[in-house]
Amino acid sequence: MTGPILHNYFRSSTSTRLRAALNLKGLDYEYVAHHLLKGEHRSSAYLSINPQGLVPALVLNDGTALIQSLAIIEYLDEVHPEPALLPKAPVDRARVRALAYAVACDIHPLNNLRVLRYIKSAFGADDEATADWFRHWVDETFVPIEAMLAEDKRTGRFCHGDLPGLADTCLYAQVLNNRRFSIDMSRYPTVSRIFEECAAMQEFQQAAPNNQPDAE
Amino acid sequence: MTGPILHNYFRSSTSTRLRAALNLKGLDYEYVAHHLLKGEHRSSAYLSINPQGLVPALVLNDGTALIQSLAIIEYLDEVHPEPALLPKAPVDRARVRALAYAVACDIHPLNNLRVLRYIKSAFGADDEATADWFRHWVDETFVPIEAMLAEDKRTGRFCHGDLPGLADTCLYAQVLNNRRFSIDMSRYPTVSRIFEECAAMQEFQQAAPNNQPDAE
Repeated sequence: MTGPILHNYFRSSTSTRLRAALNLKGLDYEYVAHHLLKGEHRSSAYLSINPQGLVPALVLNDGTALIQSLAIIEYLDEVHPEPALLPKAPVDRARVRALAYAVACDIHPLNNLRVLRYIKSAFGADDEATADWFRHWVDETFVPIEAMLAEDKRTGRFCHGDLPGLADTCLYAQVLNNRRFSIDMSRYPTVSRIFEECAAMQEFQQAAPNNQPDAE
Repeated sequence: MTGPILHNYFRSSTSTRLRAALNLKGLDYEYVAHHLLKGEHRSSAYLSINPQGLVPALVLNDGTALIQSLAIIEYLDEVHPEPALLPKAPVDRARVRALAYAVACDIHPLNNLRVLRYIKSAFGADDEATADWFRHWVDETFVPIEAMLAEDKRTGRFCHGDLPGLADTCLYAQVLNNRRFSIDMSRYPTVSRIFEECAAMQEFQQAAPNNQPDAE
């Protein structure tokens, strides 16, 4: 038994954030890829693990299936407290979660594969319209995230202090995802600086899409 | 000092879930309405509280501004532990958070006002196309939520056991929101049953859009 089974996809940004969290915790896992473009996440076998048919899911050694990347990361932080991915004080935890949710609720859900496909089928969005859509939702939320990071003295090398945490896993995965649509990152100097701090760490590098076994 | 200041909007479903959580905790708050259709949430005064320009925000008595409804609810649960909105065991907490995030990440971000407006301006979506869009994302996630609730013996009167919690606040707000677009709730008997349990409680009733001072 090498550890839990991670059901995921190399390019999925929710998978990237969870891989980063697992790596930061130093936890081993078995990697199972589900090729989203081939619909492998809609198989009945996978739906019995995650009825939502989304990645990632983490199946624990006792068979318990956990879904939703942020719920899994919170679980990991509760069961394996060190190194902590959330600060101790409730107001600080609220700040870190708010930064994470700004990415996880206000950018990613609008820009993931199923939505980009749907705006094509429902509205005939072509590649240019799809890229405009993607950039619109990133900019809508990266502008305030940049302000929240730049104007708060609790921001350190990372989103909160000098150690990486929950918000950094989300931000890192989003910035990598942005590269597919040429986001102008010069508008977001603090986000960019924190991204580079993450990208310099092995735990984040090993979570990046290009370094996964199913990368194309 | 009567308590924190809740910046919100009667019909916002993220505001509804936070009001329900505040009521379940028995916490008083001062109600400040921001009329989203009039753009009041984009004023510079409000942006200094929440750079995202979204509702809700909760300003504590010491002036600390908390944003993102789920981050605020987690904060409330940490600072005012009883009655608990999350169960004690980490796997159970992960289940409740997953149900909450299924609504908060996979339905609401796609169906809120700013997105419905954007598909109109970007793609010319008319009322019928907008309703189709709304129903599509609800059904995509209510089908698996119904399965997750119906097939798990941890489901009780509410999403997890016999007391209301985080997932119930999200589900309640979403079901109310659905009424604007005629979702066929007969497909979701367990969701409907839990919604009725919530709707029978004063704490939820008092959180409903129609019962807010700015309701139209």
